[in-house]
Amino acid sequence: MERPGENDPMQTINNHDKVSGTTFLVHDLSGSLLPELEEQGTMRRNDYYIPVSCEEKAADFGNTKDGGVSKYSKYDSIPLNSLKSDEAASGPKQGPTFQDGQRRVDYVLTYHVQKPQSVRRKTSRFADYRILRSLRRSLSTMRSGGTPPSKEDPEIAAHKHRLDYHEDDKRFRQTEFEDNLREVGLELEKDEGNKIPGIGFLKIHAPWNVLCREAEFMKLKMPTKKVYEVKQGSNVVERINLFIHKVTAPLHPKVEPNRPQNVKHLSHPFSREKQHLFDLSDRASFFDSKTRASIVYEVLKRTRCTKAKYTMGITSLLGNGVYTAAYPLHDGDVDGMGAEANDRKILYEEWASYSVFYKYQPIGLIRKYFGEKIGLYFAWLGVYTQMLIPAAIVGVIVFLYGCATVDNDIPSMEICDPRNNITMCPLCDRACSYWKLKTACGTARASHLFDNPATVFFSIFMALWATMFMEHWKRRQMRLNYIWDLTGFEEEEDHHRAEYEIQVMQKTLKKQDMSPKDKKVKLTCTDRAPAYMMGLFIMLFMIGVTFAVVFGVILYRISIRAALHMSSNPTARSNIRATVKGTAAVINLVIIIIMDEVYGAVARWLTLLEVPKTDKSFEERLIIKTFVLKFANAFSPIVYLAFFRGSKIKKLIRRRKSDMDSQQQEDYNMTLERHEKDHFLGPFVGLSPEYMEMIIQFGMVTLFVASFPLAPLFALLNNIIEIRLDAKKFVTEVRRPIAARAKDIGIWYNLLRGLSKVAVIVNAFVISFTSDFIPRLVYQYMYSPDGSMHGFVNHTLSYFNVSDFQPGTAPVQPMHLGYEVQICRYKDYRETLWSNTPYDLSKEFWAILACRLAFVIVFQNVVMLMSDFVDWLIPDIPKDISLQIHKEKILMVELFMKEEEGKKLLRDNHTNQSPFQPRSRPASHTPSKF
Amino acid sequence: MERPGENDPMQTINNHDKVSGTTFLVHDLSGSLLPELEEQGTMRRNDYYIPVSCEEKAADFGNTKDGGVSKYSKYDSIPLNSLKSDEAASGPKQGPTFQDGQRRVDYVLTYHVQKPQSVRRKTSRFADYRILRSLRRSLSTMRSGGTPPSKEDPEIAAHKHRLDYHEDDKRFRQTEFEDNLREVGLELEKDEGNKIPGIGFLKIHAPWNVLCREAEFMKLKMPTKKVYEVKQGSNVVERINLFIHKVTAPLHPKVEPNRPQNVKHLSHPFSREKQHLFDLSDRASFFDSKTRASIVYEVLKRTRCTKAKYTMGITSLLGNGVYTAAYPLHDGDVDGMGAEANDRKILYEEWASYSVFYKYQPIGLIRKYFGEKIGLYFAWLGVYTQMLIPAAIVGVIVFLYGCATVDNDIPSMEICDPRNNITMCPLCDRACSYWKLKTACGTARASHLFDNPATVFFSIFMALWATMFMEHWKRRQMRLNYIWDLTGFEEEEDHHRAEYEIQVMQKTLKKQDMSPKDKKVKLTCTDRAPAYMMGLFIMLFMIGVTFAVVFGVILYRISIRAALHMSSNPTARSNIRATVKGTAAVINLVIIIIMDEVYGAVARWLTLLEVPKTDKSFEERLIIKTFVLKFANAFSPIVYLAFFRGSKIKKLIRRRKSDMDSQQQEDYNMTLERHEKDHFLGPFVGLSPEYMEMIIQFGMVTLFVASFPLAPLFALLNNIIEIRLDAKKFVTEVRRPIAARAKDIGIWYNLLRGLSKVAVIVNAFVISFTSDFIPRLVYQYMYSPDGSMHGFVNHTLSYFNVSDFQPGTAPVQPMHLGYEVQICRYKDYRETLWSNTPYDLSKEFWAILACRLAFVIVFQNVVMLMSDFVDWLIPDIPKDISLQIHKEKILMVELFMKEEEGKKLLRDNHTNQSPFQPRSRPASHTPSKF
Repeated sequence: MERPGENDPMQTINNHDKVSGTTFLVHDLSGSLLPELEEQGTMRRNDYYIPVSCEEKAADFGNTKDGGVSKYSKYDSIPLNSLKSDEAASGPKQGPTFQDGQRRVDYVLTYHVQKPQSVRRKTSRFADYRILRSLRRSLSTMRSGGTPPSKEDPEIAAHKHRLDYHEDDKRFRQTEFEDNLREVGLELEKDEGNKIPGIGFLKIHAPWNVLCREAEFMKLKMPTKKVYEVKQGSNVVERINLFIHKVTAPLHPKVEPNRPQNVKHLSHPFSREKQHLFDLSDRASFFDSKTRASIVYEVLKRTRCTKAKYTMGITSLLGNGVYTAAYPLHDGDVDGMGAEANDRKILYEEWASYSVFYKYQPIGLIRKYFGEKIGLYFAWLGVYTQMLIPAAIVGVIVFLYGCATVDNDIPSMEICDPRNNITMCPLCDRACSYWKLKTACGTARASHLFDNPATVFFSIFMALWATMFMEHWKRRQMRLNYIWDLTGFEEEEDHHRAEYEIQVMQKTLKKQDMSPKDKKVKLTCTDRAPAYMMGLFIMLFMIGVTFAVVFGVILYRISIRAALHMSSNPTARSNIRATVKGTAAVINLVIIIIMDEVYGAVARWLTLLEVPKTDKSFEERLIIKTFVLKFANAFSPIVYLAFFRGSKIKKLIRRRKSDMDSQQQEDYNMTLERHEKDHFLGPFVGLSPEYMEMIIQFGMVTLFVASFPLAPLFALLNNIIEIRLDAKKFVTEVRRPIAARAKDIGIWYNLLRGLSKVAVIVNAFVISFTSDFIPRLVYQYMYSPDGSMHGFVNHTLSYFNVSDFQPGTAPVQPMHLGYEVQICRYKDYRETLWSNTPYDLSKEFWAILACRLAFVIVFQNVVMLMSDFVDWLIPDIPKDISLQIHKEKILMVELFMKEEEGKKLLRDNHTNQSPFQPRSRPASHTPSKF
Repeated sequence: MERPGENDPMQTINNHDKVSGTTFLVHDLSGSLLPELEEQGTMRRNDYYIPVSCEEKAADFGNTKDGGVSKYSKYDSIPLNSLKSDEAASGPKQGPTFQDGQRRVDYVLTYHVQKPQSVRRKTSRFADYRILRSLRRSLSTMRSGGTPPSKEDPEIAAHKHRLDYHEDDKRFRQTEFEDNLREVGLELEKDEGNKIPGIGFLKIHAPWNVLCREAEFMKLKMPTKKVYEVKQGSNVVERINLFIHKVTAPLHPKVEPNRPQNVKHLSHPFSREKQHLFDLSDRASFFDSKTRASIVYEVLKRTRCTKAKYTMGITSLLGNGVYTAAYPLHDGDVDGMGAEANDRKILYEEWASYSVFYKYQPIGLIRKYFGEKIGLYFAWLGVYTQMLIPAAIVGVIVFLYGCATVDNDIPSMEICDPRNNITMCPLCDRACSYWKLKTACGTARASHLFDNPATVFFSIFMALWATMFMEHWKRRQMRLNYIWDLTGFEEEEDHHRAEYEIQVMQKTLKKQDMSPKDKKVKLTCTDRAPAYMMGLFIMLFMIGVTFAVVFGVILYRISIRAALHMSSNPTARSNIRATVKGTAAVINLVIIIIMDEVYGAVARWLTLLEVPKTDKSFEERLIIKTFVLKFANAFSPIVYLAFFRGSKIKKLIRRRKSDMDSQQQEDYNMTLERHEKDHFLGPFVGLSPEYMEMIIQFGMVTLFVASFPLAPLFALLNNIIEIRLDAKKFVTEVRRPIAARAKDIGIWYNLLRGLSKVAVIVNAFVISFTSDFIPRLVYQYMYSPDGSMHGFVNHTLSYFNVSDFQPGTAPVQPMHLGYEVQICRYKDYRETLWSNTPYDLSKEFWAILACRLAFVIVFQNVVMLMSDFVDWLIPDIPKDISLQIHKEKILMVELFMKEEEGKKLLRDNHTNQSPFQPRSRPASHTPSKF
């Protein structure tokens, strides 16, 4: 055991800081209402290594009902033994511990403590602190198998009678659950007298034997002592890799293993029977904090609480409010001068900071701290952002190509040519008048920027890019699987959700009325059918609403434009376009932001109605619904505001807000223990919002790339910020998530695939129907007299005889252009005036339509074929990784073979009895060294 | 040990049979040249339980060089101890054994024995039998670690000097390899003096400890003692299943577990440390024969033969001719009155017989006998055949719908209507003349059978059917994986191919010249690039050849038709169509059959050039090449001969041939031992030919379903025969394959997927471009004056002015119809004669083209979407199976938990020392009962 950090000057300063911090806070909150606390603080200001509020931090209440005072004094007499925060600080790897400064807190559950609510509401702050004081007085240390309390603090007891049955029930369940936890070997410590009134903390520690047992059950792959050399392909490849690594050195984050590892520990699922394989010399660090937490969580999920009729553990209890929160603890503080070096701090400095935006992410460390699932998210985000770089470059080139060729584009030259004196028909009934084609010169030139042959190339490029991205990610994922020892890991079915259990229970009860046999009951499709139907209808309705909104905005634009056209105000008329577009955009933005929230809520509600069995299934169903709704919403106004949508804005607002009250918070935080600090952080709500945002962005980039080649550039810029924003959120703003193992990004990959498939079709249609690409080609090869584009503009325009205006549709100001118009032109392929059937669709129209459709078919199938080919060409598993995996297997067999031989030798020496009888079991005391 | 089957009357008869059989054969082959043999046979004819030619069957040569005579007499003196075949017969589960009648033959290697080739060629049969006799005289029993021979039979020694270095080398390698095999624990027995001259047999037996060790390494899942109840969904589902099972009872094959199992053994990867989990009471049957064989094969593959510079085992040795064949033995005989009951016999009777064509296949038994890979093939074939039933029914209905509506079809009515007196333009230059449209009446009516709206429905149906089939198969596969305990099984990378090793060695040698460092060398893309390029070019060339052939056949048809048209022979002219089609079909058939063989050879050669690393990779590359080539070949004449193609024919020929000489063979067979009998069977060459045939058929069924709705019916009929044909082949005609574990059907599934994707596009084009479906719709909704089909025929015909015939193209007999023609009609959408641009493509043409293309797009995307939806809707893992798998995992954890508790109790009783120290390792002597 290490001594409290008395010879660590840094630590001393840190403690000093905390002292003044606390004092300030106490003054601020309660004035001089807590004299003894302040007195203690002052008194101890000189012996630095004793923390200011040790009795607060290290308080260990058995139970509120416990006879507290005696234990308090008992505890107070051995203050040095409970200097927990110092204890933790001295061993930075240790993290927060129990009272004894030895046992690590691996997990924390919080629950409501009975507090005098009715009194509180009436009385002022004073009462709050009185209760707090009395609670503090009833400090007690409870270790294990706590017997029911006998003595009670009278002040608290007075309120206890108001406990209703519900609260009692909760308490019973808690007690049973905790007893069960102790039974399976976990060690518990309660803390109800902390500075956060009404919240009790249950700190959980998993001792070594529990860790070992559970690691074996969970088949956790752990590094063995056996080390082998990792070869990165051939000699040349290796040298190139090394060179690249040297060149990109400044881009690597400054975390420990910042160069390619040449050796790797052979991993093997942990097994106590094979524990000689593992390096157990340092038991404290063999299982790191995230592993310990996930082991405890596994036990918590599994432990039953039968009294409460719920079969499964913590999820039910959380769902029913028996516990209010469950979270593992962060490793330490991220800032403050004296914060010890810990993984969280390194992550904060080398990852969750804008100043390192150009660097690679320390994926290994992220995984080490947050687990594989979150590690994969950031790895994915990194790959996506990296892949956006070439796309952005090509996009910019395509855009520049458009800019460069705008002056050589014959059709726009023709439109802008003043000699081409074409009179166009009015664009709307009555209000609009005839206009000259050359006034559309600017628009024609601008549209050339986004609509030129390079766009077609770019669409194909982006379809292949999407495939390459997916392939690249699959390979990266496989590589990470190998590095993180996830090969061979199979995802197990999750535990049931509390809601599901309740539904099943209800169904069981109903069934039992009819047939007394106690059959295993589960929810079938029949039970869920109403929810499914409802879900379907509401989804369709919501999508209908989305389209209605789009339609409404279009109607708004038309009506406003007409109104402005007819307005007598000349300034209004001159700014028609800007006004209409501007207001429509704002309306759209507002509606999108509102609908986004509504859809999120609707999706969640619909998913709850379906009562999915497991968390995974819940998540998947929710994601699909949210995706469909939000996608329809996001794309309803097509490209509008693509990259400046609501959620970003929301994030910035949240950030601002959190900055605002951070100063106050910080000082208060100083006085808190780790589990209390973490309690104030937001709960971790899963990665779905982050993924969803990125997937929708991916959709934007791939789906409408034909309309806007700069999309990848904007996405890239956005993501560079996004990574750090998300990083900050995970490191500093939310409680530490439970490390979940995951081999892949799950359903998100399917969504990506789906999107990139749809993108091909959408791009085909966008190119062939919204651009002039096909008509131009058709004109050039079928109609052009000299094979050039000259005359194309004329070819696209049909004739209209002004005498054919239907009554009431002719322009009010026919003399707008200064002369009388007999025949005007409009953009369409119609029969000429002198044909038998004027204004009918012309042969050219059908020919061009056929060509457009043919283009769609060719484009779709060629791009799909190419994508499939790329998919097939690039192996999903990088070659070196598959070699390494193979090598690992061989090494493992060799290892066991050697062990085998060792055993055989031993056996031969001992006896000659028939081998492999149970009696002559391989003796693994054999110190087999490899 | 069981006594020789003396009290088994069946056995007695059997032996008697064998006796006469042998005697007959001896007479037949050698007259009275083998007096001592015959004498023995006669002598023993009365003591039935002693086999006739025990010294032949049980002969165990150490080596040809061995001093044989003494051993022979020694052996002869203990005949009762070596009555091996009786031994095996008495325990039907035992199968063939070593000399001692105890140890099972798990595997057999064959090799060339030095035989006096030059003498043999010159001398007659007499010499052969002299050698045989002398060989027989040198009988010897060699057990293990055979020392080099010292004494030699002079007759054989005379020929030994002619051994070249090559043969010597082979012998050395053999010796080393066999020594290595003995080292790892296998037991060997040689048999070189058998009735098959020039062939030596190395019989391999794996003793119990080797089996256990290897099973542990191979992570073979074996059934534990723990049994649990399998629930087939809810109560209702279970009852329905039971009912279905009762109804279909006659369809189930009569093999042992012919009803759904209600209990299942929990399986766990075999581990000697956990052997108390397994029921090892009957060691002889714990590992069944296919498992034993695959274990031995695993050892053979792994065992190195370093002297020969090849790193890897049996594959290299087989590739280099050190051994000529390697195979496990069949369980026993399939026919003959007295053949013992064995799995092979049951399979022969209940599966490989046409009389049971209507029954389900005994998949469980197939898997038990042949292993998972072959089991999966037949399961897949069964699922495919089953799925063809609904497709065939719908196809027939569609066809009948066509038949029923042919009289109501307005366009064909119009064509057949004598009042519609339309004169058509000639179909060819000069030779053909004008004709009346109504002569095409028959064709029009016939084409309606295959081209009606129901066809479109059927195409969509079949696209969805293909998806359903794939889904159904995935589920079935998953179910089999569960039943066969393959869940969690990961396919390991195979051992390297001998050819690959040789190439690597050559490269290593080359490299070593340059740099002395002994780096690990492998073949890179650079090494393979020439092969790839060559492969690509040859493939393209071959596909070109295919198309050239098609083109040639078309040319042939045109020229023959023209020639016949101009022929003066009236009978020739009247049968033009039949003659042309008939001869073209025959030519096509011949070419297809020839090309099929050529392509098979080319694909194999190209794959060899590429030097793939492993057998799996070799197989995949070969399959892709063969598939591409054969597919192009098979479809070049589109639907022609679809279901009566070469390979079938080939099979029947082969079958006939094998029937022919079977009688002779059978009698000879009687005298042979199991390993000798199996030697005469064909080698197992993999499942590729079988799969390939079925996949091409699947392609036929799905790709051209729009042209021929009866395709599924024919496929179904074909497959019912195919299953039994393949079954017969595997059971009786080839050596027993090595049981390979496989979770899925591998690359074939991808090919199926690819085909069903392509099928959608092909069907879209077939419907929209080769049928009148779209033109009819367009006419009905765009042009028809009354919305009916009346006038459609007229609408599709354009006008031609006979004065516009180019010189030399007008018909020679313009008055053929009896009147002079001014204007004739032809089927096309062209501008009318009185338009500005006569004979130009008309607006209708473009409109219909646009509609056709639009149909393609809609069809393709709708069907793809529906397929994806079906794919998504049907879970890949059946619900009950995923529940069972989950349950199994929980049971497994519970099992270990109990074990854990037992250990803890023990430990607590013994000592209080810190748990999980190596010293206090869980004592698994604990008889933990579950």
